[in-house]
Amino acid sequence: MSRFRDPPDPLFKRMNDSIGFDWRLAPYDVDQSRAHASALATLGVLDAEELEQIVSGLDSIAGELEREEFRIEPVDEDVHMAIERRLTEIAGPVGGKLHTGRSRNDQVATDVSMFVRAHSLTAIELIGELMGRLLELAERHRDWPMPGYTHLQRAQPIYLGHHLLAHFWMLRRDSERFRAALAAAGELPLGSGALAGVNWELDREAIAASLGFERLASNSLDAVSNRDFVLDYLYAAAVCGTHLSRLGQEIVLWSSQEFGFCEVADAFSSGSSIMPQKKNPDAAELLRAKAPRISSRLGSLLGSLHALPLGYSKDMQEDKEALFDAADTIQLCLAAAAGMLGGIEFDREALTAAAADEFPAATDVADMLVRRGVPFREAHGIVASIVRRALAEGRKLSDLGDEELEGLPPELGDEYRRLLEGQGWIDSKVSGPGTSAVRLAEQLEAATEALRELEA
Amino acid sequence: MSRFRDPPDPLFKRMNDSIGFDWRLAPYDVDQSRAHASALATLGVLDAEELEQIVSGLDSIAGELEREEFRIEPVDEDVHMAIERRLTEIAGPVGGKLHTGRSRNDQVATDVSMFVRAHSLTAIELIGELMGRLLELAERHRDWPMPGYTHLQRAQPIYLGHHLLAHFWMLRRDSERFRAALAAAGELPLGSGALAGVNWELDREAIAASLGFERLASNSLDAVSNRDFVLDYLYAAAVCGTHLSRLGQEIVLWSSQEFGFCEVADAFSSGSSIMPQKKNPDAAELLRAKAPRISSRLGSLLGSLHALPLGYSKDMQEDKEALFDAADTIQLCLAAAAGMLGGIEFDREALTAAAADEFPAATDVADMLVRRGVPFREAHGIVASIVRRALAEGRKLSDLGDEELEGLPPELGDEYRRLLEGQGWIDSKVSGPGTSAVRLAEQLEAATEALRELEA
Amino acid sequence: MSRFRDPPDPLFKRMNDSIGFDWRLAPYDVDQSRAHASALATLGVLDAEELEQIVSGLDSIAGELEREEFRIEPVDEDVHMAIERRLTEIAGPVGGKLHTGRSRNDQVATDVSMFVRAHSLTAIELIGELMGRLLELAERHRDWPMPGYTHLQRAQPIYLGHHLLAHFWMLRRDSERFRAALAAAGELPLGSGALAGVNWELDREAIAASLGFERLASNSLDAVSNRDFVLDYLYAAAVCGTHLSRLGQEIVLWSSQEFGFCEVADAFSSGSSIMPQKKNPDAAELLRAKAPRISSRLGSLLGSLHALPLGYSKDMQEDKEALFDAADTIQLCLAAAAGMLGGIEFDREALTAAAADEFPAATDVADMLVRRGVPFREAHGIVASIVRRALAEGRKLSDLGDEELEGLPPELGDEYRRLLEGQGWIDSKVSGPGTSAVRLAEQLEAATEALRELEA
Amino acid sequence: MSRFRDPPDPLFKRMNDSIGFDWRLAPYDVDQSRAHASALATLGVLDAEELEQIVSGLDSIAGELEREEFRIEPVDEDVHMAIERRLTEIAGPVGGKLHTGRSRNDQVATDVSMFVRAHSLTAIELIGELMGRLLELAERHRDWPMPGYTHLQRAQPIYLGHHLLAHFWMLRRDSERFRAALAAAGELPLGSGALAGVNWELDREAIAASLGFERLASNSLDAVSNRDFVLDYLYAAAVCGTHLSRLGQEIVLWSSQEFGFCEVADAFSSGSSIMPQKKNPDAAELLRAKAPRISSRLGSLLGSLHALPLGYSKDMQEDKEALFDAADTIQLCLAAAAGMLGGIEFDREALTAAAADEFPAATDVADMLVRRGVPFREAHGIVASIVRRALAEGRKLSDLGDEELEGLPPELGDEYRRLLEGQGWIDSKVSGPGTSAVRLAEQLEAATEALRELEA
Repeated sequence: MSRFRDPPDPLFKRMNDSIGFDWRLAPYDVDQSRAHASALATLGVLDAEELEQIVSGLDSIAGELEREEFRIEPVDEDVHMAIERRLTEIAGPVGGKLHTGRSRNDQVATDVSMFVRAHSLTAIELIGELMGRLLELAERHRDWPMPGYTHLQRAQPIYLGHHLLAHFWMLRRDSERFRAALAAAGELPLGSGALAGVNWELDREAIAASLGFERLASNSLDAVSNRDFVLDYLYAAAVCGTHLSRLGQEIVLWSSQEFGFCEVADAFSSGSSIMPQKKNPDAAELLRAKAPRISSRLGSLLGSLHALPLGYSKDMQEDKEALFDAADTIQLCLAAAAGMLGGIEFDREALTAAAADEFPAATDVADMLVRRGVPFREAHGIVASIVRRALAEGRKLSDLGDEELEGLPPELGDEYRRLLEGQGWIDSKVSGPGTSAVRLAEQLEAATEALRELEA
Repeated sequence: MSRFRDPPDPLFKRMNDSIGFDWRLAPYDVDQSRAHASALATLGVLDAEELEQIVSGLDSIAGELEREEFRIEPVDEDVHMAIERRLTEIAGPVGGKLHTGRSRNDQVATDVSMFVRAHSLTAIELIGELMGRLLELAERHRDWPMPGYTHLQRAQPIYLGHHLLAHFWMLRRDSERFRAALAAAGELPLGSGALAGVNWELDREAIAASLGFERLASNSLDAVSNRDFVLDYLYAAAVCGTHLSRLGQEIVLWSSQEFGFCEVADAFSSGSSIMPQKKNPDAAELLRAKAPRISSRLGSLLGSLHALPLGYSKDMQEDKEALFDAADTIQLCLAAAAGMLGGIEFDREALTAAAADEFPAATDVADMLVRRGVPFREAHGIVASIVRRALAEGRKLSDLGDEELEGLPPELGDEYRRLLEGQGWIDSKVSGPGTSAVRLAEQLEAATEALRELEA
Repeated sequence: MSRFRDPPDPLFKRMNDSIGFDWRLAPYDVDQSRAHASALATLGVLDAEELEQIVSGLDSIAGELEREEFRIEPVDEDVHMAIERRLTEIAGPVGGKLHTGRSRNDQVATDVSMFVRAHSLTAIELIGELMGRLLELAERHRDWPMPGYTHLQRAQPIYLGHHLLAHFWMLRRDSERFRAALAAAGELPLGSGALAGVNWELDREAIAASLGFERLASNSLDAVSNRDFVLDYLYAAAVCGTHLSRLGQEIVLWSSQEFGFCEVADAFSSGSSIMPQKKNPDAAELLRAKAPRISSRLGSLLGSLHALPLGYSKDMQEDKEALFDAADTIQLCLAAAAGMLGGIEFDREALTAAAADEFPAATDVADMLVRRGVPFREAHGIVASIVRRALAEGRKLSDLGDEELEGLPPELGDEYRRLLEGQGWIDSKVSGPGTSAVRLAEQLEAATEALRELEA
Repeated sequence: MSRFRDPPDPLFKRMNDSIGFDWRLAPYDVDQSRAHASALATLGVLDAEELEQIVSGLDSIAGELEREEFRIEPVDEDVHMAIERRLTEIAGPVGGKLHTGRSRNDQVATDVSMFVRAHSLTAIELIGELMGRLLELAERHRDWPMPGYTHLQRAQPIYLGHHLLAHFWMLRRDSERFRAALAAAGELPLGSGALAGVNWELDREAIAASLGFERLASNSLDAVSNRDFVLDYLYAAAVCGTHLSRLGQEIVLWSSQEFGFCEVADAFSSGSSIMPQKKNPDAAELLRAKAPRISSRLGSLLGSLHALPLGYSKDMQEDKEALFDAADTIQLCLAAAAGMLGGIEFDREALTAAAADEFPAATDVADMLVRRGVPFREAHGIVASIVRRALAEGRKLSDLGDEELEGLPPELGDEYRRLLEGQGWIDSKVSGPGTSAVRLAEQLEAATEALRELEA
């Protein structure tokens, strides 16, 4: 195929060949070739019979791929050569006509775009399922109080349903990032040839329509040098993975004996090789562990593209393994998260007990003073010294007598105690995004609507 | 302010205080406080006079900030405390009322959102200017041939204008990523309090309208835990920086004595401390060098958010320096790239000579055979052996006589030579995104239109 | 200084100038220049009087630097120019002789090496202090039982002293990595000039001796292109930071109400702007948060050096900010960790209660069977079913009667209960690195010895 | 094996099982088990016959592994279970005794240490071969002048042998980093059990001796939580990969038509699917491309370990794929670099022509003035204006007449021209690490010695 006298060195071949991983592009390559063959027929490069021979050969290959019968041969350097080689075996020399008006450079950019599009859609679907699981759980636990934390210190009680919905909204943003990757990969590179375009006026509109692309690349050099859409996918996966790591971390914490807030189903746990009593939340740990892996795949491709002159360079081959591994990982994480949440059991008693602490009411006491005109900072100071006293003496806030409430106007003592006894501070969070039951009800509705839109 | 007896350890203070960098949020914090004060007045927490005192105090602070007269005091832990402290100095105890219905957690999320929005817009503007510069250059060099490269080997000639436009389209995609960051940061966190919401039904619609937010956060816990919009900005900057590194690399190469394709203006070059003859394309090198810096800022924040339970944790303070440095760096790179391209001079002679090589016509010869019905692969093989012979004998393709054109049907010898002599292969790239003059003219129009849209 | 007609563009100057950060190299640059001046005098380039003038000028500059009186001027592009400029102001034109036989390329490589050496030593010292603090704490808590965890599930009890020493050994490895950075930076680049060497046979042995370098660079091109020693420092800092993040994470967990194992001193905690009861372990959170920042600095420099041809390129300027920030961060983290551990209080009762769980004895029961010849896997299976029963019925292992110990040879019932009642399984871990009191005593001795060596 | 009623969910199993990649640890696991069995026999847990059964079973497994006949079964969660399962099939129930006094946690830490040790040695060997190749090439091209570059601008001529040796010294530093990884992995974790030690006083000295470990872990918790040695290997590989990327970049540049300095052998090049004249230096591009991949593997593991509490967590499973991929990649890169350099041809004529430029002599002219007592800065200024004039008029420095040498003392005109005509400036670089022939001869000797040491 080339002007070389010497065959590739086996070492070089091992380093250079991409067939070991790019066989995953095979179904996309076959589809692309069908569309390209039609375009060549329109141009008269193929006559009707030749087109028929090629398309029927490609159909056979598609079948072999599906049945996992397609055999890679040692001469197959990459997936494109493998398919062309096989096509020529099946359809004869006419197979050699298929590479007219196309180069491996625009061909691979097209295949990878198609892969990104398909896997962005899959990710969005899996995100939708996980969001659905979270929404269900949030509905079911809409009135279960639990401590809300800052700095991993109990801060203010919230409803478990409210907490779960926080993850819901994070995932919705993830779906938008995958949608951006989908759109970014929607520009057809075909027609760009090696870098300068080709000598044939291919009907790109027709190809795009048949392969589901939305737009046409404007510049052949850019089209073969561009891997932005892979970066966009990797970025979406990295943030989504990071979100899931936060969920995983919480499940790990909540499953500990110390928290005791939940228990993951056996089917998503593992035991120990020497400690029979152990039940480990491995699935949650893996959710936590995978984020740096995906993020570093993004870093890796950014690194390979860094300082690379335009036009295809072999360095760009690094896009594939990064992409494939990120896609496999995030899809598995999303599915496993949904599975794990399917069988999770929360412990109402433990959550309620942990949320019953009176100190989180401190802000409410301060706000009570504010409603009487005390500036917030001053109110905060008064309450802080009351809290200090209660902590130092190991007493509850509501146990303090009027005379112990230094700084508090004496006439407010009763209201102070009423407020604490009412334990109403979870429902006092009435601001728009607050946890109060009334707001949470609205939020659940909004979430239902958001999920419906996503699935539309 | 807190329940502590002991003052912070100086070491801890040095590590904990953010005022050293978060003073950059000051103008946003002042604007936010103006809007929050209005909302408190609507609720009756502030009366008209108090509102007036606070707003006028904030105006004074805004003035001090603009005139760089605002003084940070040792007690100021962060920018929010500094401004509240100063407000209380100016307006008196009423200043202490401003923190009603707000926590540092939703306050800082709001400030950072505002910063991201402002700097996304700046980035889009700077990108537009650089695109304008590239478009101008592309127009001016629309018919200058140069070699197009793959693997840094001369592959096929293209027009310099075509090459420059490849960077144009890359930047347009960058503008879209910054637009996504802008949208992501358009959700108002205020009203989320520490994590659970606040006890006041703030009119968030009014606050959003006055600060330019497009949407309202739905979940208080998510709103204080969320830094997706910072990630989105960092990602946009990382890809944009990587794009600029590819441009920088090309300018470095093209400025070398070996390429000799261009010369950067003195104003964007540096000399040597010991070699007086040197003229170094430092600006281009810096464009190249900065991408990993920005990418690693993204990696850093992804890392800090990894496995972090929801609710504010101090770890989130790491968002700021990453964001500020990335914003400074990408803005400087974009402006410097535009400046550098403003004074660049291309060498038409050198470019044309480099593009004149006959070997890139090999594809055209192959396509000539294809038009006669030879399958492309076979045509490719025939041409490869002709090329091999010419290279081995150190001759030009057009110097070979009919009898030396092994595999070429003898009747095609004349057409073969006509094709080579015509040097027409640059304009034979007539496919949609190709480099031919006719396609390039269309592309320049499309670019003009795209730039107009961007600036709209 | 150069052959240029046009002054640098302000934008370019902002991007190009390094004085904003490389002023931190000033003391090293002054020391280096003193040594270089001596070498020039040896060669006869400077006579005795000139040497005296230059050295005395450099001494003045050193004084100005120490008193923070050194003024940077707008013309000062970098620290080297600033110092030479100032030297010429003080000592007159003879200052211009100092750059003989030296280029900014070998000069900056030398300065940065000196910085790395000094800061590696500082890091080792700070690590020693932190190890000392851990050793003290381990001594003091050598017989406090606590749960050991895997998967954040209670697994087997260990002594708190044992746990603390795990961090001790991690830090010792960190000290070795900093020692490697110290050694790597011990090769003198001076004499390499711009890249090819200089025209003067400088006495490099003398320079090395006076500046504390251990070896001489062998190849001028390598010496100016090499930043391995910066990478080595960044790597040491990244791993050390990651170790500290694991310590930080544990303190955060242990400080939570759920664990309740320890309390950090007020001086290393912060309060809340709206929740007066809060006490947040901010210092521990920051330890946790900083690791990705340092790691990404390493990634950033690896990225800038990636694919960079040998010989100085401007890209290498990216080494400095990465290095300075990593050094500041890790030094602060180490000092703060030592400070924080100084005031930490552990809660013996809470730790002991958490460690008292009987289930961790399961392995000991299995080992009891093994000692009777039952294969471990079989023993593990028998114990697992006993554990399952106890868990299902909510009973303690020791509460089960003989007839309920399915699979256990009946004659072992008594030994089974004796083993559980003895609660001796923490001291049964008698293997070399085990937690038993006898092994821990040996370990404390070994740690004392290791610390002594480090400080030697 | 555990206390669970429900089997693992297939999704969870897919995520959790490590057998898909950790089978690569199998030979190490078998060796380790042989040593562990001996230790159990010493303790009396195994009698002589049982030991013999186990060892002979392990030998069979080793044979199956070598012949690639070992079958992984669906129940095999990881390599340790697979081998134990197979051992029990071969040797009967006695196989179940092997897990006495050992946990998967110390077992896997030991296997991974062994892997790191073996692959560090392999890397050092491959580095030695590549250094040998470079040394040979440097000897052969010791007197071939070429341009030395800074900022990719021709700066001063050097010998090609000098340039090649720069890479030699970089690699020697790489060998030291792999040696550090080797040492770091030399601490035996066995005896640490799950985290607390085991109930058996294993003879760890004997195990260490038989497996080639140099030291014993001191703390069981640290030993199971520690992956520093994997980080050390990944770091060594990352820097080595970055070094190779710089070499790769230079080969790519030098192979371009513009430089024309060298040609890579056909066996390490590839052609084009549509441009028969192309010869692409793919191997060099891949050297360049792989560095970010390896660096990001380091980043990934640092990320997974970040903030991880001590004691084994499932997150640590992420160490393996990172390690395996980095090892495969760096080994392939090193071998391919040696292969590629084996067949490289340099073009003496092109190199000499490029080095012949007179401008690099400017420093020598300045030094000539310095030797007459002119301060370097002043001399630099004089020469700069002479250079400016020559460049502006398109003339060579040596063509300028005395009256055109503004600033040059008239009596020096002849020496000026002699210096330029002599073209001696490459050999004037006589400082220690300089490129002059005399220094290069010394350097070649030093390199020979260094290589001998490495191979010892």
